Amino acid sequence: MPEPRITLVGAGPGDPDLITRKGLKALQTADVVLYDALAAPELLEEVPEHAPRIYVGKRAGQKRHQQQDISRMLVESALAFGHAVRLKGGDPFVFGRGHEELDEARRRGVPVAVVPGISSAVAVPGAQHIPLTRRGVNESFWVVTGTTSNGELSPDLFHAARTNATVVVLMGLRNLAAIVQVYKAQGRADLPAAAIQSGTTAQEKIALGTVASLEAEVTRVGIGTPALIVIGEVVGLHPAFVREVAQQLSPAA
Amino acid sequence: MPEPRITLVGAGPGDPDLITRKGLKALQTADVVLYDALAAPELLEEVPEHAPRIYVGKRAGQKRHQQQDISRMLVESALAFGHAVRLKGGDPFVFGRGHEELDEARRRGVPVAVVPGISSAVAVPGAQHIPLTRRGVNESFWVVTGTTSNGELSPDLFHAARTNATVVVLMGLRNLAAIVQVYKAQGRADLPAAAIQSGTTAQEKIALGTVASLEAEVTRVGIGTPALIVIGEVVGLHPAFVREVAQQLSPAA
Repeated sequence: MPEPRITLVGAGPGDPDLITRKGLKALQTADVVLYDALAAPELLEEVPEHAPRIYVGKRAGQKRHQQQDISRMLVESALAFGHAVRLKGGDPFVFGRGHEELDEARRRGVPVAVVPGISSAVAVPGAQHIPLTRRGVNESFWVVTGTTSNGELSPDLFHAARTNATVVVLMGLRNLAAIVQVYKAQGRADLPAAAIQSGTTAQEKIALGTVASLEAEVTRVGIGTPALIVIGEVVGLHPAFVREVAQQLSPAA
Repeated sequence: MPEPRITLVGAGPGDPDLITRKGLKALQTADVVLYDALAAPELLEEVPEHAPRIYVGKRAGQKRHQQQDISRMLVESALAFGHAVRLKGGDPFVFGRGHEELDEARRRGVPVAVVPGISSAVAVPGAQHIPLTRRGVNESFWVVTGTTSNGELSPDLFHAARTNATVVVLMGLRNLAAIVQVYKAQGRADLPAAAIQSGTTAQEKIALGTVASLEAEVTRVGIGTPALIVIGEVVGLHPAFVREVAQQLSPAA
């Protein structure tokens, strides 16, 4: 039997061609693969025939329990089959809980390698030709989860809304109204903002506007999960963004 | 002659296997390639033999002028040869000035595609098993340039130092003393911090400590550019991080 080992692989934002060459090589040498809902299913075609493919997507309401189960299952799979590849959407360490899996493997003495993935936080705005940074416009970007463990908005967002950082909110669609309020309270209703669903895939959709108009645009375009929100002057560089129109759309800009 | 078009490709953080499959396909169909100092030279082996390879790395002190030159040269190359691939270290839109090149192409009517790359901001800490986010530890990460157009520290860093965000400073080694002061002024001398040179390559080196000890560690280990700095509780998850030792090292923790 091959030596047990684990590779955590970032699958990228959705487009199966946005996995790295290193990630592909890991898949092609896998003895077992554990994958989640966000990874492109086409990637499983790279896995050798002998290797079982195990779906470990989480069900709502059982998150904490299931993460521990997944970490344990990953280690058990390596012990049973050899090279276990854990294929995760995006990057394993960007809100991916990859480090909890790494911890469990370390605790059990199974070697772990990490192959980074393209984070949707960077690639999804980029694929829409929205740069996270532009010289003379901003000097930083800030990536924050829109859904904290307790369901509330992260206090980090209140700080972010005071700066010129491009802010990317992952998994924040459900809290969009609250996010909009945070920016309005800072007098920034006119700041360009977008919500992008299923970025880099054939199902991609974008709602484009200002902080003030974004909720109405999200409804009009019909944006659903998975989606990210991006807020900042750089959104105004989108080829379809026209500030005056966006401001007319604003109910109370 | 093939139709002129441009693809901006992110080469990733250094390891040539960390380019995406999509980026490789672009290189393999290039009629001309313009590349910079940060992209792995091995990647040029993927380029068809007929395609010229043009080095456009910037020289110090001529930055502004040279960026305009590069943007123009990229468009002229597409017009002269067909499919022009612009290979940039990391991601084209993360402090990569890719959007200025996209703008020039759009102005001249040459179609542009963007292929995101793995940003060193995410992958370099990850390769060291430092997760940018860890559930229960932090809810965001903030990527900021350490070298603004005017050479000073970005005001964003003063905000960042007040939050629980993991902060990644790119190109900040020269301003390390000033960055350390910002954190000390917030009473955060004990916060775990690292500086990583040439991450994901054979030349990789890490200095690991706290805000207070980092400068001495950088000197002791001999960290040089290109390097990034990462500051936050997640750095304490590095397998070699031992808080007590780090604090003993601190001159004035």
